Amino acid sequence: MAQKELKEFMDNAGQIYLSHLSLDCVVFGFHDGQLKVLLLKMKNSDKWALPGGFVKLEESMETAAIRVLKERTGLDSIFLQQFHIFSDPGRSDNKERIAHLQKAGIDLPVSHWFLQRFLSVGFYALVDFSTVTPQADAFSDACVWLDIGEIGPLILDHSQILFKALEALRLQLHHQPIGYNLLPSKFTMPELQRLYEAILGRKLDRRNFQRKILTYGILRPLKEKRQGVAHKAPQLYSFDMAKYKKATNL
Amino acid sequence: MAQKELKEFMDNAGQIYLSHLSLDCVVFGFHDGQLKVLLLKMKNSDKWALPGGFVKLEESMETAAIRVLKERTGLDSIFLQQFHIFSDPGRSDNKERIAHLQKAGIDLPVSHWFLQRFLSVGFYALVDFSTVTPQADAFSDACVWLDIGEIGPLILDHSQILFKALEALRLQLHHQPIGYNLLPSKFTMPELQRLYEAILGRKLDRRNFQRKILTYGILRPLKEKRQGVAHKAPQLYSFDMAKYKKATNL
Repeated sequence: MAQKELKEFMDNAGQIYLSHLSLDCVVFGFHDGQLKVLLLKMKNSDKWALPGGFVKLEESMETAAIRVLKERTGLDSIFLQQFHIFSDPGRSDNKERIAHLQKAGIDLPVSHWFLQRFLSVGFYALVDFSTVTPQADAFSDACVWLDIGEIGPLILDHSQILFKALEALRLQLHHQPIGYNLLPSKFTMPELQRLYEAILGRKLDRRNFQRKILTYGILRPLKEKRQGVAHKAPQLYSFDMAKYKKATNL
Repeated sequence: MAQKELKEFMDNAGQIYLSHLSLDCVVFGFHDGQLKVLLLKMKNSDKWALPGGFVKLEESMETAAIRVLKERTGLDSIFLQQFHIFSDPGRSDNKERIAHLQKAGIDLPVSHWFLQRFLSVGFYALVDFSTVTPQADAFSDACVWLDIGEIGPLILDHSQILFKALEALRLQLHHQPIGYNLLPSKFTMPELQRLYEAILGRKLDRRNFQRKILTYGILRPLKEKRQGVAHKAPQLYSFDMAKYKKATNL
């Protein structure tokens, strides 16, 4: 978005969006055995930000989050879960915002809609890494996947939001299976285990993991084997969606 | 609160509270083997409501919820957990609100702060039933405990908020122990089991329950036995708070 459009956005935002309410999304993906998070590189800054946005006057939080994620990822159908509202009165650091806009040549009066206090609803999303087309927004130069272990300084309280999203995802994993949204349609048991290990941040015992995941009854062994493997071809699985949906209340 | 004070509240609310943001609290207590919820009987209506309120201009959601609950229960220190923001654009039924205020002799212009769309953050609280002094608010005649199984029609989407709070409490119970906030300081194993059963809405196997709860390592058997019991006096327990806090991340 050019400076002119950014200025227009600023001029009109108060008529389109609810005041003092925003949302931030922690989008998780899985690739090459690594848990990844979709992040925006801020313009004129060395900091990163979570994808986020505002809530239209007549939108639900969920509709707003779906709209924002569609803009950033190109995806229509995303597993999305709100997990916390971040409401510390000190969380909107206007010095950082004002400096950032001034670098872009925009001066806002202190009473401007954009410079009020914002409470932000955190969502986490689970997406199939391979289907996403990351798109930068008006405030950023780039939108990219970063490994969860390699994320540098984030703006505002976004590190806290990311941490709490990971906590919520780990909690979800303790009481229901995970994987459908994050893995390709066919996968091996070691690949599923690696996904769990990436989320939990620790190694799991192979036999315990296999026993536990099979008790859910959500996996369907496939007749085909993985191609191009030298020795013993590993068993491929897919999710039994009827049972998966039952186990996860989808 | 008399009509005059209610009118004053309406006149000033927009200068004191954030617009279009409220909170509702599902306060759980446990008494006589029953899970109970604190509810307000609405004035001039046969409906009930969850205790709730608004957020001051510079408050966090948590500070606002603590303030509201202090007003309704007299308690300073409450286990409090936000679990969801309810944001359906149709959830603020202004016909119901306007009719309700008119019965109280108050006519508000349609553009009034109180008649805007509200998004509400749901909290659940766990309290020791015996320490609460319920207090009605400006919109209600009474504030009382009702058994979870005997709750009649609630205003707006409060039934949905209650249902989702119970769901969140059940989820909490699956991954961490519960009881410190809801039971007296000394209790028997059957009393703790009855609390779990009341929350889950189903009977539990005695031996499985005892084994599972003892694996948490959070119970301390007491030397004293319950007084006034005819035959075999049941073992009393209390929570080992150091271990309880560790298990529940308190």
